[in-house]
Amino acid sequence: MAQNELVFAPLGGVGEIGMNLSIYGFGDERRRQWLIVDCGVSFASEEQLPGVDLILPDIRFLVEERKNIVGLVLTHGHEDHLGALIDLWPRLKVPLYATPFTAALFEAKRLSEPGAPPVPVKVVPVGGRLTLGPFTIDFINVAHSIPESNALAIRTPAGIVLHTGDWKIDPTPLIGAPTDQARLTALGDEGVLALVGDSTNAVREGRSPSEADVARTLADLIRSAPARVAVTTFASHVGRIRAVADAARAADREVVIVGRAMERVTQVARETGYLDGVQDFRSVESYGYLPPDKVLALCTGSQGEPRAALARIAEDEHPEVTLGKGDRVIFSSRAIPGNEKAVGRVINGLVSQGIDVITDRTHLVHVSGHPRRAELLDMIAWVRPKILIPAHGEPLHLAEHAELARGAGVPHVLTCRNGDLVRLGGDGAQIIDELPSGRLYKDGALLVNAASKTVSARRRLSFAGIVTVALALSEKGVLVADPEIELIGIPETDAGGASMMEIVRDAVEEAFESLPKPRRRDPDIVAEAARRGVRAAIAERWNKKPMCHVHVLEV
Amino acid sequence: MAQNELVFAPLGGVGEIGMNLSIYGFGDERRRQWLIVDCGVSFASEEQLPGVDLILPDIRFLVEERKNIVGLVLTHGHEDHLGALIDLWPRLKVPLYATPFTAALFEAKRLSEPGAPPVPVKVVPVGGRLTLGPFTIDFINVAHSIPESNALAIRTPAGIVLHTGDWKIDPTPLIGAPTDQARLTALGDEGVLALVGDSTNAVREGRSPSEADVARTLADLIRSAPARVAVTTFASHVGRIRAVADAARAADREVVIVGRAMERVTQVARETGYLDGVQDFRSVESYGYLPPDKVLALCTGSQGEPRAALARIAEDEHPEVTLGKGDRVIFSSRAIPGNEKAVGRVINGLVSQGIDVITDRTHLVHVSGHPRRAELLDMIAWVRPKILIPAHGEPLHLAEHAELARGAGVPHVLTCRNGDLVRLGGDGAQIIDELPSGRLYKDGALLVNAASKTVSARRRLSFAGIVTVALALSEKGVLVADPEIELIGIPETDAGGASMMEIVRDAVEEAFESLPKPRRRDPDIVAEAARRGVRAAIAERWNKKPMCHVHVLEV
Repeated sequence: MAQNELVFAPLGGVGEIGMNLSIYGFGDERRRQWLIVDCGVSFASEEQLPGVDLILPDIRFLVEERKNIVGLVLTHGHEDHLGALIDLWPRLKVPLYATPFTAALFEAKRLSEPGAPPVPVKVVPVGGRLTLGPFTIDFINVAHSIPESNALAIRTPAGIVLHTGDWKIDPTPLIGAPTDQARLTALGDEGVLALVGDSTNAVREGRSPSEADVARTLADLIRSAPARVAVTTFASHVGRIRAVADAARAADREVVIVGRAMERVTQVARETGYLDGVQDFRSVESYGYLPPDKVLALCTGSQGEPRAALARIAEDEHPEVTLGKGDRVIFSSRAIPGNEKAVGRVINGLVSQGIDVITDRTHLVHVSGHPRRAELLDMIAWVRPKILIPAHGEPLHLAEHAELARGAGVPHVLTCRNGDLVRLGGDGAQIIDELPSGRLYKDGALLVNAASKTVSARRRLSFAGIVTVALALSEKGVLVADPEIELIGIPETDAGGASMMEIVRDAVEEAFESLPKPRRRDPDIVAEAARRGVRAAIAERWNKKPMCHVHVLEV
Repeated sequence: MAQNELVFAPLGGVGEIGMNLSIYGFGDERRRQWLIVDCGVSFASEEQLPGVDLILPDIRFLVEERKNIVGLVLTHGHEDHLGALIDLWPRLKVPLYATPFTAALFEAKRLSEPGAPPVPVKVVPVGGRLTLGPFTIDFINVAHSIPESNALAIRTPAGIVLHTGDWKIDPTPLIGAPTDQARLTALGDEGVLALVGDSTNAVREGRSPSEADVARTLADLIRSAPARVAVTTFASHVGRIRAVADAARAADREVVIVGRAMERVTQVARETGYLDGVQDFRSVESYGYLPPDKVLALCTGSQGEPRAALARIAEDEHPEVTLGKGDRVIFSSRAIPGNEKAVGRVINGLVSQGIDVITDRTHLVHVSGHPRRAELLDMIAWVRPKILIPAHGEPLHLAEHAELARGAGVPHVLTCRNGDLVRLGGDGAQIIDELPSGRLYKDGALLVNAASKTVSARRRLSFAGIVTVALALSEKGVLVADPEIELIGIPETDAGGASMMEIVRDAVEEAFESLPKPRRRDPDIVAEAARRGVRAAIAERWNKKPMCHVHVLEV
């Protein structure tokens, strides 16, 4: 039996976008101590999961291993890295660590959710170090699209792992220091066993432009705008907020914050010093009092979210903020895959009002926070890992990252799946076990197991609706009341104009009457006969079979 | 009252993707004769319209005006231009005209749909002329992504309209002749009153690459493939099919056709001469007998359609066609907006099997069939219209096309909406009326009015499920059987693990018992009390309110 080996397992985030949760274990098969890195959500697409707001990792395994968990460390404050904590931390109650901005942003978000339990966060200084059981963790600064993104250098007696978190190379990131090349190179000199790294942009050639390039474009577009300007970006992108604020000041415009998430983040950024030197922003109430060429609205809703500020502005339904012909809206963002249609709807709503809409399709108003191929190669050259495991991306991204790493001479490259337990040793990486893993759905206030029928039943309902029938059956097998029938989500008439309700009524009666009399006494037989009759009658006209539930009351 | 004026109205396709249907009228307010151009569908997104397959234009207005319709002319064979005919033509029964390939493709599609009514199509020769009432229509060849795309020069006593249909400029389109610059310029010399034109790519700078450029890339990628190759493209893109076939022949590979739509189109293309000189293709049954380096599978499913060939191959569920590690799949296509996630799922399925996936992100394996800005300017320069009306595109595209036209000196530019009746005169274009317009949903075998509750009820069901309750109530206001309860699409337990079924049962009983006895005799009051009680009890635990239907049987 192996003694004191180092293992890694993704419980989310590998082979998918979002829901990042990785664990590192040290020990032997009988007992390992576990370090958790991140605990994020991913966003459900309505098409696949109607009525589901969020997807969370299934942490059964960690709940069982709770006494062996030494802590949970957050790399940064994005929802796909910490969004599952409010729901899942109460099941673990393990020590939780984050740098100041991440901790403050999480706390502000928690306070905004009614009924959220207290979740104590221990603050680690920027660039700090933490020892948890056999793990000594250095927080190494990396540039990203939120302040205080950290790569974690995780030291164990079996070697060092660099867990990159989300990162890019940006010599002029506007907020915080650039990615810490010196410290990463020193780590490489020391000898890195494994690199577990961000693969999001592994299909993109070259290097990302800098936030400073984006800031220049924004400044030009805001200066040249003839009337009102609105800018939307990811609420947590404080560097971008700063660029917009600087551009507004240069154009002699006041910045009005529109949308609660944006208010929350700017508040936290002020408290933690990331907006030091930036002018005060104005509240949304002042919008209507400012002349068109003196105002800039900084809005939530860059993903087309229907209840966010920009969607309401596009529908001309925002209580305070209106835009019109000749005004300019800048999407300083990109649609996350799956949101393209929603973003398109908002853009079309704005254009229909005669508003000039500017996106990253035609102007450099956004750059990604993830490393492209040349940046990935830089990281490999700095760190020189023996093992590389692509993380944070869909299968295509992982495969491209793996191929790139092999081409760069990394001796051992392994792509794995959520739940794979990977041993990291001097002889490479092997999948040695499969841990319980999976998904939970946040459905209203409840967490639902992805394997339960709750959501799949709703998907069936959405496809073909439902017929419900109630029958009152006497002991003698006689219907003692008229059948009650309800059709929901089913066309009212067939192609010839006949009422579907009457078609169903006839089908129920015919199904009942075609049963031999002794069988009419059995409520299960009656219900099943009616159900089959109804579904067949509708399918004949509609070519779709609705769900059908028949209640038989024995009276 | 105006005499013999020319009017135009889009009944679909303006301000949206797909569902193209335009009408031209000549006459006065009391009676106009109508020419219909195209009759297309658009594809429903599951998110917005669960269970809806297609969106069709509402042709109430045309049904009323049926006796004044002189004919329906198809510009080309794409579904967004003719996909509504099988359902809607029977309501109009007007003469229908198309060029040979379009007519044959439509007929092949019609025959593939069980129960589709006969729809007679009168064939117009390529480049031909047709006179229908006051309209004389010249079919002018334009390049596009299907054979026989036509711009229509519509001559009336009030002037000439050029209805471009879908087009691009491609000096080497592989199939058919290039866009007929000479004829369009001659038309401009003659004097064109109005141009109604394709706006799809009005946001894209420059000119599209040619199909010949794509063919070269495909030839390289197919020649260099080490093992099996599969290519997917739009089934109707015969030029692309020809390019793939030529590349396969050069690489000494047999082409196997996979997917019914692809089989249908290649059959029609052979019959109409568009695959003359191209080698015979092999049936799907031969796939397994060909060596990996001697086969190329040409597949349907470029949009990620879950039942199409490529999605089934990606899930390793296709009965005949399998791919594996080292094989290559080329997406010679682009995801139509809204299909990005579905396409991504297929790509990820392929990559997870170790298949090398190539898309237009990194290689020139696809070009659009629509004109970019420089091409739009060429068309304006050739035709020199007095009026330009942007059509075929979302609001953003229409607005960009309009701005481009104004910049190019077109005297009158008008953007309009579906249903606007536009007068086209020497003094420009005015919206003079609004015609009934809208959308129909193809829901199973039936057409449902978009205003009906059928689909919105299903959307509600998909969000929060349904509870149905059946009660048997005696005349005296006593429940004479145990309530029957069914929960569908609702979590089984609350956060504390209590059964939702029991929570609902308690809520029903409590609601009933809290009614004063005389009111218990009224089935409507009982039903409403139970319904409110159930929804409140669930909302308290779930934070979502399901639909609830209570059947009360009076026994």
